[in-house]
Amino acid sequence: MTTEARTADIAAPLAAPTAEDGAWRRRHLLDLDDFTVDELDLVMSTTDAMKEVLSREVPRVPALRGTTIVTLFYENSTRTRTSFELAGKVLGADVINVAASGSSVTKGESLVDTVKTLQAVGADVLVMRHNRSGAPYLAARHADCSVVNAGDGLHAHPTQGLLDLYTMRGAFGDVRGKKVVIIGDILHSRVARSDMWALTTLGANVVLCAPRTLLPSGLAEAPEGRLPPVRVETDLDRAIEGADVVMALRMQLERMHGGFVPGAREYSRLYQVNANRLARANPGALVMHPGPMNEGVEISHEVAHGLQSHVEEQVKNGVAVRMAVLWLITRQTTRGGRPAEARVSL
Amino acid sequence: MTTEARTADIAAPLAAPTAEDGAWRRRHLLDLDDFTVDELDLVMSTTDAMKEVLSREVPRVPALRGTTIVTLFYENSTRTRTSFELAGKVLGADVINVAASGSSVTKGESLVDTVKTLQAVGADVLVMRHNRSGAPYLAARHADCSVVNAGDGLHAHPTQGLLDLYTMRGAFGDVRGKKVVIIGDILHSRVARSDMWALTTLGANVVLCAPRTLLPSGLAEAPEGRLPPVRVETDLDRAIEGADVVMALRMQLERMHGGFVPGAREYSRLYQVNANRLARANPGALVMHPGPMNEGVEISHEVAHGLQSHVEEQVKNGVAVRMAVLWLITRQTTRGGRPAEARVSL
Amino acid sequence: MTTEARTADIAAPLAAPTAEDGAWRRRHLLDLDDFTVDELDLVMSTTDAMKEVLSREVPRVPALRGTTIVTLFYENSTRTRTSFELAGKVLGADVINVAASGSSVTKGESLVDTVKTLQAVGADVLVMRHNRSGAPYLAARHADCSVVNAGDGLHAHPTQGLLDLYTMRGAFGDVRGKKVVIIGDILHSRVARSDMWALTTLGANVVLCAPRTLLPSGLAEAPEGRLPPVRVETDLDRAIEGADVVMALRMQLERMHGGFVPGAREYSRLYQVNANRLARANPGALVMHPGPMNEGVEISHEVAHGLQSHVEEQVKNGVAVRMAVLWLITRQTTRGGRPAEARVSL
Repeated sequence: MTTEARTADIAAPLAAPTAEDGAWRRRHLLDLDDFTVDELDLVMSTTDAMKEVLSREVPRVPALRGTTIVTLFYENSTRTRTSFELAGKVLGADVINVAASGSSVTKGESLVDTVKTLQAVGADVLVMRHNRSGAPYLAARHADCSVVNAGDGLHAHPTQGLLDLYTMRGAFGDVRGKKVVIIGDILHSRVARSDMWALTTLGANVVLCAPRTLLPSGLAEAPEGRLPPVRVETDLDRAIEGADVVMALRMQLERMHGGFVPGAREYSRLYQVNANRLARANPGALVMHPGPMNEGVEISHEVAHGLQSHVEEQVKNGVAVRMAVLWLITRQTTRGGRPAEARVSL
Repeated sequence: MTTEARTADIAAPLAAPTAEDGAWRRRHLLDLDDFTVDELDLVMSTTDAMKEVLSREVPRVPALRGTTIVTLFYENSTRTRTSFELAGKVLGADVINVAASGSSVTKGESLVDTVKTLQAVGADVLVMRHNRSGAPYLAARHADCSVVNAGDGLHAHPTQGLLDLYTMRGAFGDVRGKKVVIIGDILHSRVARSDMWALTTLGANVVLCAPRTLLPSGLAEAPEGRLPPVRVETDLDRAIEGADVVMALRMQLERMHGGFVPGAREYSRLYQVNANRLARANPGALVMHPGPMNEGVEISHEVAHGLQSHVEEQVKNGVAVRMAVLWLITRQTTRGGRPAEARVSL
Repeated sequence: MTTEARTADIAAPLAAPTAEDGAWRRRHLLDLDDFTVDELDLVMSTTDAMKEVLSREVPRVPALRGTTIVTLFYENSTRTRTSFELAGKVLGADVINVAASGSSVTKGESLVDTVKTLQAVGADVLVMRHNRSGAPYLAARHADCSVVNAGDGLHAHPTQGLLDLYTMRGAFGDVRGKKVVIIGDILHSRVARSDMWALTTLGANVVLCAPRTLLPSGLAEAPEGRLPPVRVETDLDRAIEGADVVMALRMQLERMHGGFVPGAREYSRLYQVNANRLARANPGALVMHPGPMNEGVEISHEVAHGLQSHVEEQVKNGVAVRMAVLWLITRQTTRGGRPAEARVSL
């Protein structure tokens, strides 16, 4: 390949959606509970464009040059934080990391004051993880910059929901009518909640499988429309029958001793995704897990690293999905009165 | 706007002062106690140029491309560290963060050895926060690179002094003859010290207001010329009368129980900046605070977020002021014998 | 200098070795124990090219633009981490820092899972420090990306070995036949181990000097070829006689009380490198130390900062050596089937 060709490749514009842009009106990404089919489709097609960028010889585009992204993490996370950081850098943004444990946040500054300060410093996007459900909503209410929820308490983890959706669509094309079984600690899982919203909106058939103690009460009824239409099944063998996707959730070891389950051995006996159980799913069913995995607890080593495992692909897709979210959201942000989309043609 | 126009905009040179450069001879920024009127003016006009950059569609210039800035923080700070980090990145520098708590510094390496190591690694500028007064002086004495004091013990916080000055000049044009009341824990405040030097040099009328236990001894007399000419007033109602700027300092909660004041409630009763007291100041007086604020202690919630509050503007101006400082200081640094100014035309 | 000339300078290609590339086949840098003379020579000449880049007016080249380097440090280190971070940034790579203490690693995720996750996120190179000997081997066995050992337990610190070698070659041209005395806690020193391999491969005459309790058992014999041919001498005065290089190792203070030596004072009396002892070495012998130094323990203040000290030069050379390693290693990495070398001509 000649130098000229390569230079051209690098300067190739981002082929991100423009025509369908009408579907996107969000300045924040807080949850997937109110996403329309069109919005989910737009994120998916934008992610396709980002995957193309990541496959280039020099996987960088200056689409967000001049944009400042601050990651504000009140809980530690390797995969989510590094995934957002790389997503921003691939798009040419500057990324500044703030870990709450190493910041003046511990001086007792309120969340709202921290958010206002970071925005005043110059954050265009605040990527935020917080141990309290709803914290990003509070931030968004007071912020002029964009807020992206990178996981809040037991509530939501929308970019995980989007990357799980993208991974399934990569395998099936469309998730409509597919049976997705989510197994384990649903009660404490923001991942499960975000997955449910994305999947049911697109017509997937979601089955939750867990002991009753690890299920939120009143899930299946959804009397107030605040819960997506899912089915509950406490017997894993029955739940997994004919599944297209088998997703195991992380079982926090400390919860094992909290009265939720009789113990690790008993939990594994009843709810571990292993080869025997996987055999009941459809042939070629996807095995997924949001990570980090407790191998030998909620998933066997064999299945975790088997041919059907899509765990690494989930992580890979995470970067492209987050690029898509950062891109879509900053196009709604104005700085000095100008819409941000002009930046792409740099 | 056409692509060409935008590209031109991005490539627009930094309109930073050049003619007046003669006024600047500093390689380090350690304190404001010896700044001349000309030097303060130069920082202010350079900050104007940086504000222009920050208002651009793509708020980045490659003025410091190739420059390595290391932030070395022995104390945590969200706003100051992120502000310096963004200031460096906006100017195209590479920024490397070193938090002393997560570094070999805890292996007992001396400050001088750490500084020499970071300089040998390649730091052109060392932005340093330390809990001991004078530490940046020690660093500067042994360093070939530039040292910027980002706060040292109870001594100085010069970039905070400069941003406070810039904020006041934005409102008044000139601070000469303006009455600035600084309220609270003067004894432990490096911010107050740096503010005093900047403001009195430019002819402002500075009044300190605090209980006697929170005032440095011998402040008003300044027998050795080591203290700026300020007035002291222990009664807040009297102090605030006719003020143009009302600046509340953070009251460290732990100090409330250290015998300095009778208690939080008593302190608030006597020294809180609230609406009643603010009414005694001049109409439109600026309310300022270096943050993070203890609302309900040294400042009421109402005033902290009221129309007269300039707290967010202080933070905003912090980035531009730090860009100006980094720019001015690196123009004095030579690398391999060449003056650094040539870098701007990249 | 005109703007044109400077632009040309910046755009000047990296003059890194190309003809001799045949000598390099490594995807990982784990240890120096199996390095050939040709490989060591190639790293040295590549480092020369990197030094030239660092001496430029704008010391940056886009040679690794589009490359993602993740530093994964399970132990703290200021100098090694910042050195790798700057090395990556000088070459135009994006660098993402992961400190194990502030990451989900503490959730009990296994090393292999962490490595696979970071690779799936997009790491092209994983620069890894770990307290367990051999950890980078485990990572490399499971990783598709490159792994660079930045220090593992008591085992190896190959880039330190290379920078020490480079520093000696800068003084002597060739280390063949030079007497290099390494003094102190050999038993716990990964630096000593890596130095030994590099130096003996190139024909230096390495003498280890330490109390018997701080020497690995069976060093001099090397029955299985797993130890390089070195000489042991417990008397420092005899060891240092005619030395060309005198390298003191850090004496961990906690080890002084662990039964290895009678105490700090006794240790210093017998093994401190001071002016009297240095006088027995060859005139102009290099004084080296991997840092951080315990002045007054293994080295006197006078010698540590004397004319013969090359400690700062070691740190300086560290950046260039790490640039060379990152460059050589990524040329072996393919991404999407393409060899990475094309990137250089960006």
